[in-house]
Amino acid sequence: MLTAEENEMLTRSGRGTPGGEFFRRFWLPVALSRELPAPDCPPVRVKVMGEDLLAFRDTTGRVGLVEPRCPHRGADLYYGRNEECGIRCVYHGWKFDAEGKCLEIPNAPPESKYKERVRIVAYPTREYGEMVWAYLGPADAMPELPELEVGLVGAEHRFVSKKLQQCNWAQSMEGALDTAHFSFLHMPAPETFESINPHAPVDEKRFRWVRDDPMPKFEIVEHDAGFVMGAARKADGDELYWRTTQFMLPSHSTTPSTLPGETYFGYTWVPVDDVSCWIYTSAWNPERPLDAAERAKLAAGHGVMSVVGPDYVPLRNRGNEYLLDRDDQKHRTFTGVQGVAEQDAMIHDSQGFIADRTREFLTATDAGVVRFRKTMLAGMRAVQQGTNPPSARNGGAYRLRSGSWIADRKFGFADIMMQRFGDPHGRVHS
Amino acid sequence: MLTAEENEMLTRSGRGTPGGEFFRRFWLPVALSRELPAPDCPPVRVKVMGEDLLAFRDTTGRVGLVEPRCPHRGADLYYGRNEECGIRCVYHGWKFDAEGKCLEIPNAPPESKYKERVRIVAYPTREYGEMVWAYLGPADAMPELPELEVGLVGAEHRFVSKKLQQCNWAQSMEGALDTAHFSFLHMPAPETFESINPHAPVDEKRFRWVRDDPMPKFEIVEHDAGFVMGAARKADGDELYWRTTQFMLPSHSTTPSTLPGETYFGYTWVPVDDVSCWIYTSAWNPERPLDAAERAKLAAGHGVMSVVGPDYVPLRNRGNEYLLDRDDQKHRTFTGVQGVAEQDAMIHDSQGFIADRTREFLTATDAGVVRFRKTMLAGMRAVQQGTNPPSARNGGAYRLRSGSWIADRKFGFADIMMQRFGDPHGRVHS
Amino acid sequence: MLTAEENEMLTRSGRGTPGGEFFRRFWLPVALSRELPAPDCPPVRVKVMGEDLLAFRDTTGRVGLVEPRCPHRGADLYYGRNEECGIRCVYHGWKFDAEGKCLEIPNAPPESKYKERVRIVAYPTREYGEMVWAYLGPADAMPELPELEVGLVGAEHRFVSKKLQQCNWAQSMEGALDTAHFSFLHMPAPETFESINPHAPVDEKRFRWVRDDPMPKFEIVEHDAGFVMGAARKADGDELYWRTTQFMLPSHSTTPSTLPGETYFGYTWVPVDDVSCWIYTSAWNPERPLDAAERAKLAAGHGVMSVVGPDYVPLRNRGNEYLLDRDDQKHRTFTGVQGVAEQDAMIHDSQGFIADRTREFLTATDAGVVRFRKTMLAGMRAVQQGTNPPSARNGGAYRLRSGSWIADRKFGFADIMMQRFGDPHGRVHS
Repeated sequence: MLTAEENEMLTRSGRGTPGGEFFRRFWLPVALSRELPAPDCPPVRVKVMGEDLLAFRDTTGRVGLVEPRCPHRGADLYYGRNEECGIRCVYHGWKFDAEGKCLEIPNAPPESKYKERVRIVAYPTREYGEMVWAYLGPADAMPELPELEVGLVGAEHRFVSKKLQQCNWAQSMEGALDTAHFSFLHMPAPETFESINPHAPVDEKRFRWVRDDPMPKFEIVEHDAGFVMGAARKADGDELYWRTTQFMLPSHSTTPSTLPGETYFGYTWVPVDDVSCWIYTSAWNPERPLDAAERAKLAAGHGVMSVVGPDYVPLRNRGNEYLLDRDDQKHRTFTGVQGVAEQDAMIHDSQGFIADRTREFLTATDAGVVRFRKTMLAGMRAVQQGTNPPSARNGGAYRLRSGSWIADRKFGFADIMMQRFGDPHGRVHS
Repeated sequence: MLTAEENEMLTRSGRGTPGGEFFRRFWLPVALSRELPAPDCPPVRVKVMGEDLLAFRDTTGRVGLVEPRCPHRGADLYYGRNEECGIRCVYHGWKFDAEGKCLEIPNAPPESKYKERVRIVAYPTREYGEMVWAYLGPADAMPELPELEVGLVGAEHRFVSKKLQQCNWAQSMEGALDTAHFSFLHMPAPETFESINPHAPVDEKRFRWVRDDPMPKFEIVEHDAGFVMGAARKADGDELYWRTTQFMLPSHSTTPSTLPGETYFGYTWVPVDDVSCWIYTSAWNPERPLDAAERAKLAAGHGVMSVVGPDYVPLRNRGNEYLLDRDDQKHRTFTGVQGVAEQDAMIHDSQGFIADRTREFLTATDAGVVRFRKTMLAGMRAVQQGTNPPSARNGGAYRLRSGSWIADRKFGFADIMMQRFGDPHGRVHS
Repeated sequence: MLTAEENEMLTRSGRGTPGGEFFRRFWLPVALSRELPAPDCPPVRVKVMGEDLLAFRDTTGRVGLVEPRCPHRGADLYYGRNEECGIRCVYHGWKFDAEGKCLEIPNAPPESKYKERVRIVAYPTREYGEMVWAYLGPADAMPELPELEVGLVGAEHRFVSKKLQQCNWAQSMEGALDTAHFSFLHMPAPETFESINPHAPVDEKRFRWVRDDPMPKFEIVEHDAGFVMGAARKADGDELYWRTTQFMLPSHSTTPSTLPGETYFGYTWVPVDDVSCWIYTSAWNPERPLDAAERAKLAAGHGVMSVVGPDYVPLRNRGNEYLLDRDDQKHRTFTGVQGVAEQDAMIHDSQGFIADRTREFLTATDAGVVRFRKTMLAGMRAVQQGTNPPSARNGGAYRLRSGSWIADRKFGFADIMMQRFGDPHGRVHS
């Protein structure tokens, strides 16, 4: 449970808010690279943390992320022409490059100094892991790109997408750090409890262990990028089924189900405003390329990927109650909503546009949620007091994995991390 | 005409407002029984006087009306599972019964005291007249169910429905207490004035008397549930055509056209919020069952019943200007809008989302409207001062009828009531 | 650039605001005459400067423009019956004439004085140039109708329409006074720059001169109705291509392209509210009637006329991004939006619902825009101080034309006006 002030701090991302300033100390994905498929392609509107921006890929392939207002009389550069290394306003032809520099003012005399005085806001961008990343913070606090593993593997080893979530980012992120909910939200209906949920992304044994133990024991270990969390459920015999999850500041996580050799999954939450966010979703397999069938399945919506339209808005969404089917809910799935990603989206949206954390009854399985809030609020307060987040300056600290492991109950979380990842924090040594 | 303060008092129904507290001293219908057709059927969202609630029929058939927020982390119980005598949150399986008691917390240890501490708000409910009634007021002021006649007759004698009205409840209720408007709103166009409006729910003589006397004389007699009102129009020869109407606190009325042997009709207004309301509409014939043809006609929309979609929203509504047909208005009906219920809805909506009663020019035919306001404001002020409405504690006082009577002009309203109903207030003696 | 206060003053039109009071010293078009095609036809809703009104053409053909609220209990007279020289409320039959006088109160006794006491607000109207004009200001400041040339020519010589603009009126008006933008907004894409934009309403030479000189020299001369403005571009040899534009208070303009013998075009902006306006658009040829083909072209949307639906809302609009086609933008037109009127609408909307004039970098080609603001603000301040605009009392001052002329560079703007129009201000002498 948080105070009203803490809840505000955790959930607001506008410029000047403590949360907004904290987020603005990190690189964040603002588009998929494929949304800007070629040099001089159409620009795309980008809204991030309440800022209306315009992204365009210039003739050289560089991505500009700029304030879309022409300084002359305020026309919207979105309607502009992306041509010859700049975006040109169609009203009077003023032109700006990806760094916001004014290149041409055709309706001012050549001797005018306007070109030097006129700039538009432009944020630095990078491309990594098929995502366009931007940094919206102060120039003197420029961080490193987080070296998420999805960007380390070759393109043939990964699939990246995004989906719109129609609520505040933080409650959706909390859902990923609360792996106890797998025992309910993603299960079949009790009457078919013995069968396997066809949508469950795990095999029969793991499914059964998750189903049968709704109260996993949580362990948390902090590291340079955030923390790694283990949740142990009873498995068969004397064994425990461990599911581990990474939280990386400010808003990345990786998922808990992956056994060695299987595909890894990750999420990054980026506020559009305080009542909606993009969730960038990644799948990667460091050991082998993803084949065409796997890609097709992920592109069609599977696991962390929602079924989305061409605008990346989930087809099952707040506006249509996720196509909730009460007959399916009664007889087949626990929720009546198809898709693990959609089940998550539904329950997160249902907490309200901004979850009210001043009225809660938390339990031991909310350990990850509690630690997340504490970590975020501490980081926000530090920035308020002038200390930038050390993790932002340490891109290498983000080379992390999480996943599953089955081991005798005599082993502790530290043993599990070593057995599963060869590293106490799940660090990729490559 | 009211002051701005009085208009606010009359029209606001939120918790804590004088009007809202007054309404919260009565049982009110919050759903049709058939919206919850069977044990463990899907729950339905209910919004009443600004409160977002959830209604569900449990395994025993009992209806719960609860706050839909799971106390754990605020997920919406609407997406929950209605099963085994309770509604279960699909996030972590917390379960609550129809009285708001917590039955299970699967992710808390068995020894936890949470189950005892955690409750959700639940309001008492009853079923009567095929409607689910709820009481949203203080437990120590619990009233009696109003014994409206529609609930006294057998199911085969009645038909009950509801319709959404897209404006404040009070101006719509006023329309029912202003029976002078029948001389206009529900008439044919003047050029066909000699013919019968095919939508008028009365025979030729009554139609003619209403048409020809736009200024009926009103008489009002107060009784334990509110008041009964008579409006006398010139009939043939020395006779008067009396139409009587019941107003019962806080928001019930019965209609004026019924002659002995004919079907009775009633309305109950229930605020959704301050700019929309449900109108529960009833037809009943105490002397004979309603046959299939009558039921079909009522279900399709006739008289007090609007033509509605499966969501009970009128198909002719504010959003489509009631399918106003100007050619029909010029040549056939007075309004160009089909349906008596729809004509009423149109004119009430047209007064604004909340009618401004500070600018009015009332006439003698507004006598019922004026008495209604006075009665309501007095009741609201009494509750403010700690006196609960006596009528709410006297369910039997609601066994009332109204209707038509034709009699020599020498008889006064008191005679008419005795001749027509055998009782000065229209009380049903059965 | 304006201060925030000046920008407010320029753009607000509600009753009591400086801008609203200024506008309320002039006759303004509020409907096309053909929207009220016949006596006793259906009334139409009219919203002008934030006031919700009702226009109806009575049995004698006179147009009433009234407050649509029945004084009895506030029902909306829009749903009323337009019959026998008045609009009748369908609730209780109260009836009002085009001057707002109450004609009948059927539910009040004949001896009642109500009819004398009850009035509805009614504004004086006129019809001129196939438009219904109204005056919403104080009776003692009643101005003259502006004698725009479109109303002087015979009906067969003109075509009049209107279109909705989804932003504040002033920035859209500014677009008409900023003729420098023709060198960009209405051009073909650079790669087809040598070809002619099929949508450009001018011939090859004029097109080329406009394309090749993006920085015309502006001259402005004030007159009794506002000002006339010339913009000179380099033509062939030693000649200049002059394009002149009229600005007439408070919100009329005429277009710059017309050569002698060609058709003239004009605009009048009328605020609906502060974020949308109607643009009344006129075409007229004083020398010859417009033939069927020309009328068909204008009715289908050409030049200043948008392609509109039956409600006069442009089919390409803010809600569908003007059907922007990026392929067309890259290879064929400068904007990718079809239609000169639509290109204008797009860029004006894109400045925001109300353009922020506190952040601008104006150039010499914004001379007309700057003068417009100065003229308007001066007029608004004068009305604030009790001085009504002299132009409003001088309808004859609006008999003005504008258009193109090609002449040797030795001639100044005064010479050009005399050569082209035989008058220093473009006055029509007829």
